Amino acid sequence: MQEINFGAGRPDPGSFPKEALAKAAEKIILDHGTELVNYPDGRGYEPLRAIAAQRFERNEGCSVPINEIVLTSGSMQALQLISETFASPGDTIITEEVSYGGSLSVFRKHRLQIVPAPIDEQGLVTDRLEGLLKNLKSKGTPPKFIYTIPTHHNPTGSILPLNRRKHLIKLAQQYDTIIIDDHCYGDIVFQPEPLPANLYHLSKNDRVIYVGSFSKILGPGVRQGYLIAPDSLQQHILANKIDGGTNALSSMIVAQFLGGNMWGHIRKINGIMEARKNAVIESLALHFSGFGGEVSWTDPPGGMFVWVQIPRTTDTKKALQLAAERGVYYTPGQAFSATGRDIPFLRIAFGFPTIDHIRDGIPILAECIKKAQDGNKHLAA
Amino acid sequence: MQEINFGAGRPDPGSFPKEALAKAAEKIILDHGTELVNYPDGRGYEPLRAIAAQRFERNEGCSVPINEIVLTSGSMQALQLISETFASPGDTIITEEVSYGGSLSVFRKHRLQIVPAPIDEQGLVTDRLEGLLKNLKSKGTPPKFIYTIPTHHNPTGSILPLNRRKHLIKLAQQYDTIIIDDHCYGDIVFQPEPLPANLYHLSKNDRVIYVGSFSKILGPGVRQGYLIAPDSLQQHILANKIDGGTNALSSMIVAQFLGGNMWGHIRKINGIMEARKNAVIESLALHFSGFGGEVSWTDPPGGMFVWVQIPRTTDTKKALQLAAERGVYYTPGQAFSATGRDIPFLRIAFGFPTIDHIRDGIPILAECIKKAQDGNKHLAA
Repeated sequence: MQEINFGAGRPDPGSFPKEALAKAAEKIILDHGTELVNYPDGRGYEPLRAIAAQRFERNEGCSVPINEIVLTSGSMQALQLISETFASPGDTIITEEVSYGGSLSVFRKHRLQIVPAPIDEQGLVTDRLEGLLKNLKSKGTPPKFIYTIPTHHNPTGSILPLNRRKHLIKLAQQYDTIIIDDHCYGDIVFQPEPLPANLYHLSKNDRVIYVGSFSKILGPGVRQGYLIAPDSLQQHILANKIDGGTNALSSMIVAQFLGGNMWGHIRKINGIMEARKNAVIESLALHFSGFGGEVSWTDPPGGMFVWVQIPRTTDTKKALQLAAERGVYYTPGQAFSATGRDIPFLRIAFGFPTIDHIRDGIPILAECIKKAQDGNKHLAA
Repeated sequence: MQEINFGAGRPDPGSFPKEALAKAAEKIILDHGTELVNYPDGRGYEPLRAIAAQRFERNEGCSVPINEIVLTSGSMQALQLISETFASPGDTIITEEVSYGGSLSVFRKHRLQIVPAPIDEQGLVTDRLEGLLKNLKSKGTPPKFIYTIPTHHNPTGSILPLNRRKHLIKLAQQYDTIIIDDHCYGDIVFQPEPLPANLYHLSKNDRVIYVGSFSKILGPGVRQGYLIAPDSLQQHILANKIDGGTNALSSMIVAQFLGGNMWGHIRKINGIMEARKNAVIESLALHFSGFGGEVSWTDPPGGMFVWVQIPRTTDTKKALQLAAERGVYYTPGQAFSATGRDIPFLRIAFGFPTIDHIRDGIPILAECIKKAQDGNKHLAA
């Protein structure tokens, strides 16, 4: 039985640049390997921070000083540091009502109280967020931060429009809180229209921390993420970063590779990703239309995920198990629910499986969901 | 002005194996680089865990199952995970009264109450530890764990004798606590006598967590540490390790290099380290004897540090500043004090400076300490 894996957000193994990465590793270790006897700098290996700054400038159309960038062990460490720096166990934070499960796990581990904010197909509904903030303030539990994925949202793929971005920043000022902008999927873009200005740039008042990652364009195994924060916030974060520094060996190799190959590699990946995304959408149209009006899916303008609404009568645990028995893996909606409740959704990550896998896997998925219908169940959407 | 750095515990840059490491990196990325598109395993890259197991067996004379080993981002992450898993802010822990400053920083960051345990030239005085445990128990603040560096103690270089090791384990059983055995310096050995049996092996009752590192034989820039813990303790630690996994790129390269070179490389490093240690001891005898009886230093059987007692009348801040003005850096005793108080000691790390640096630097250090005498000061030793 072949394994078809729509689970974790991973890049394509077939286009992994092992020859170029091996060459980059050999060169940088010969040239600079001796520096590894030192503890890495507090903010991390400067040439990789310079590449993060170039990437920011190209993707966002505005520049950021290298000193505002701090390398972390994947974006997960950035979120760990932010959680322990700006919140204490029991404190309230806000996330989108569905959000990346890995981030939710970090917040739960720090025993933060996650309050879900309503979203629609454009992302955070900032008008309703305003009411939420007012309510939390009156209860004496204002959020320590608002965690959001404004661009290529995981899992929904939404892009927050400019007017809502501006409103979000205004609300953060008014209610004196911080915005964490998780920007890990910013490079993977299928639409030709430019993206709205980013929150870090829009906020000139030290209220935004931007989180980025090289995992999505190279691989999670390199564990190179970063945060961008103004000095006033960064110094508090660095005081908690007692980790001996971010992995300099990996930073060196990634910097050496991306220094010569970043845009070409991203272009190549985007082509592969878009073809796979299209294959998912086509297969869903073919095999999921039989469910009727209750079922729908996103056609994301970027990122690595399609978010599928399935019938409310689905026994989601049974569907997951039936699919696994046939070698098909995906992430159930519950993993993205800020409240942790079962919801009639599932996420298809399309970076890892080939187009043949996608065409084989989606009909199996449809069959398993059909078999897992339970007339007694009726999940709230 | 040349910089002479006796500060951080770092290996010799001159013997850094950059050619062999570059070759190892090239080979492993070509052969297995594609695996980097996956998130690393929960316990980390298995071939490096296998090497940690081999190293344990060779150094400790007994074996450990590979599944008890978890790779971490340096030993610092191991201590972070242990702190958050087994203690909460405000909880009491015990450390040696002088101990590694990096570890103390981690414990302080987690707001743990550090209770210092008395040591002598053989390490923890377990008879006095017993009284301390009794006292803490009666006050209702029993320690969540006892953190110790039993072999090549940082900074004192002591090796805890077998009878005290056995007593320590008995006390941990009796007072129902855990022992954290920081073993980061275990490879660097100058004495031919075998080391006492290690605590992990002596404890057959799930009470010991062993912490190791590849930083001291290769370089802190590779950020490859590990912990060894029985399943009963390990599962609690893994539940808190929400970091996307330990850096697989760096693990692969270190495993590929050490797989072919570990013992030869360690032998080479030990020869260099011992020659430098001897140069420090000779220079101290030449230049520090003028201070009289109050001044003394260790002649460690292994590790990377000489611990020097200086006159109690020293203005330690002034001495540090005077030395820095002349390009000589070291770590003052206060950085190792579990209570954080100023103590009349300093640590000389001898891995990084050359023998010429050592011969130039020690007399400068002696002059600066002489100039920093303050008759009004009288530090408690």
